[in-house]
Amino acid sequence: MRFVLAAGTTRTAAIEGISAAGADADLMVHTPSADAEVLAYGDTVRAPSVPVSPTGCPTPAVVTRAVRDLVGFDLTVVDGGLAKNTAAPTVTVGARPGDDIREEDPVPTAPGAFAAARQFGRALPDDELVIGETVPGGTTTALGVLTALGEEVGVSSSLPENPIERKRDVVDEALAVNGLTPGELSGEPAYAARYAGDPVLATVAGLTVGALRSDTPVTLAGGTQMLAAAALVRHADVDAPLALATTSFVAEDEGVDLDGAADAFDLDLTVTDPGFDESDHVAMERYVAGEAKEGVGMGGALSLADRTGVSMERVRNRIAAVYDGLLGERNGSGSP
Amino acid sequence: MRFVLAAGTTRTAAIEGISAAGADADLMVHTPSADAEVLAYGDTVRAPSVPVSPTGCPTPAVVTRAVRDLVGFDLTVVDGGLAKNTAAPTVTVGARPGDDIREEDPVPTAPGAFAAARQFGRALPDDELVIGETVPGGTTTALGVLTALGEEVGVSSSLPENPIERKRDVVDEALAVNGLTPGELSGEPAYAARYAGDPVLATVAGLTVGALRSDTPVTLAGGTQMLAAAALVRHADVDAPLALATTSFVAEDEGVDLDGAADAFDLDLTVTDPGFDESDHVAMERYVAGEAKEGVGMGGALSLADRTGVSMERVRNRIAAVYDGLLGERNGSGSP
Repeated sequence: MRFVLAAGTTRTAAIEGISAAGADADLMVHTPSADAEVLAYGDTVRAPSVPVSPTGCPTPAVVTRAVRDLVGFDLTVVDGGLAKNTAAPTVTVGARPGDDIREEDPVPTAPGAFAAARQFGRALPDDELVIGETVPGGTTTALGVLTALGEEVGVSSSLPENPIERKRDVVDEALAVNGLTPGELSGEPAYAARYAGDPVLATVAGLTVGALRSDTPVTLAGGTQMLAAAALVRHADVDAPLALATTSFVAEDEGVDLDGAADAFDLDLTVTDPGFDESDHVAMERYVAGEAKEGVGMGGALSLADRTGVSMERVRNRIAAVYDGLLGERNGSGSP
Repeated sequence: MRFVLAAGTTRTAAIEGISAAGADADLMVHTPSADAEVLAYGDTVRAPSVPVSPTGCPTPAVVTRAVRDLVGFDLTVVDGGLAKNTAAPTVTVGARPGDDIREEDPVPTAPGAFAAARQFGRALPDDELVIGETVPGGTTTALGVLTALGEEVGVSSSLPENPIERKRDVVDEALAVNGLTPGELSGEPAYAARYAGDPVLATVAGLTVGALRSDTPVTLAGGTQMLAAAALVRHADVDAPLALATTSFVAEDEGVDLDGAADAFDLDLTVTDPGFDESDHVAMERYVAGEAKEGVGMGGALSLADRTGVSMERVRNRIAAVYDGLLGERNGSGSP
């Protein structure tokens, strides 16, 4: 099993009120690079800080790293359009940072990244892939892609109160600027990612199509962004079995019909509840309050822990330890 | 423990008769990219083939990968000037492919790569680093660096008959073209790599200086190229303890005074004999005949196996299995 993280950026994240994947807009552009370092090394190396939301919710990379410490999986980070240099080793597929989707042709590298990622996914010798993502603003671009494909699926949010009306306005404007109507890019996944999405979605979809075409089982690890990736895969005419593993926080989100979407895209769905409500550690409390919910392959990592017999209690203890090592002292909440 | 592989190229390798790190000059330029893929995935992914010498000696990457299969260490590949795209994830330090050292200013990126690698090595949170290299032609550029620093140390070869006179001629010409006399760059490691070396040596030396400056123990995994890297580190005024782990093939090379060099650079020397003469497998027979000898961290990997209690018999069996999976069928010499 190999865990692949597609890490990249879209300037859509800088739209006021869209994303909580960083303490502020200046730091958010570092989030994917920092997430990759936390997964690769257990700490930031070149990134300025460990990503936290404005209210202090730590990046889900803390959760995925904690599971990696316990389970020990191989990691490959693919540069899905990083805006900042990362010390995590990355594979290149030609993706460049995405523009705000309200600009013309916001992701010109999407078709190339889709093709290169497809070739990479096809050539990988692994017996199984679990694919996660980190891209602030990604639920908005996911809505863009789903709309362009003509799929009516709600999307989640890293904020407790989903700014869904704001997202719909952004997507409407994006389609208008790019001369598109909803559903017009049905069957055109690379173009849906190019004109209404982000470079990470193009990368994840390409990887998945390539792996499935060479009979490598794939689990998309994430929430509504991975539903958009699954939609792109299905619109590439790939009907091989495909799994999606996410968290109970996404499953409980009333704005998302997860079961309906899994049915629509023929996904084998796994939902894992990490039992954060049984902890009173600061690393987990903002998740219980509805923040973050998913990201950096968190749901897939939790399901890997589950299927390898690692209890959620051990996972929570490890999350607390990773958090304390990374953020505890700086926040004055560290345990010794 | 983290195993770091610095992978890059120098056009010095294209000089007739200098290197056996590839079946021919056209393929040799792919060798470091392919070696990185073999280490990362256990197979080539984007590279056209698994590197073999003109006589069929497989790349030492086969040995290091076999040990990785048995011991399970973390791997980070640093792009030390790759000429060909690799599917292995890489960390960027700004190194570009090196020119033939008989050209003016053959490695202009060496000082920048040295500095960026130093910063990366300093920031890595690991408790220990083992650093290997893959750069065809690297023993010639190692001789160049040692000469520019004023260190009289013989270098080894990937060929059974070391073309040492040819190498000395190349180095003499390199120093003349760049207006240098032997020893003129004593105390100037980044410039020695720039004017008489290759980008991989600059990267390895920078990584080592950075790690040692933050009290992370380092083992240089390799033969005479790593002696040159150690010389660069000492000429950077770093006198912290430093280890070198290599193979018995380098130790037995009469052209190299390994003990003398280890003394001169104050290195804690480990020599591991993989007992290839006890095998009659094609993967190992060319090593017994004096080819390859080292590379891709082979000596360091063997010593890792040794210190974690993995017998050389198990290592040899695994090497045979890796070879058969990668090259056996194509060569018609595979075991079932």
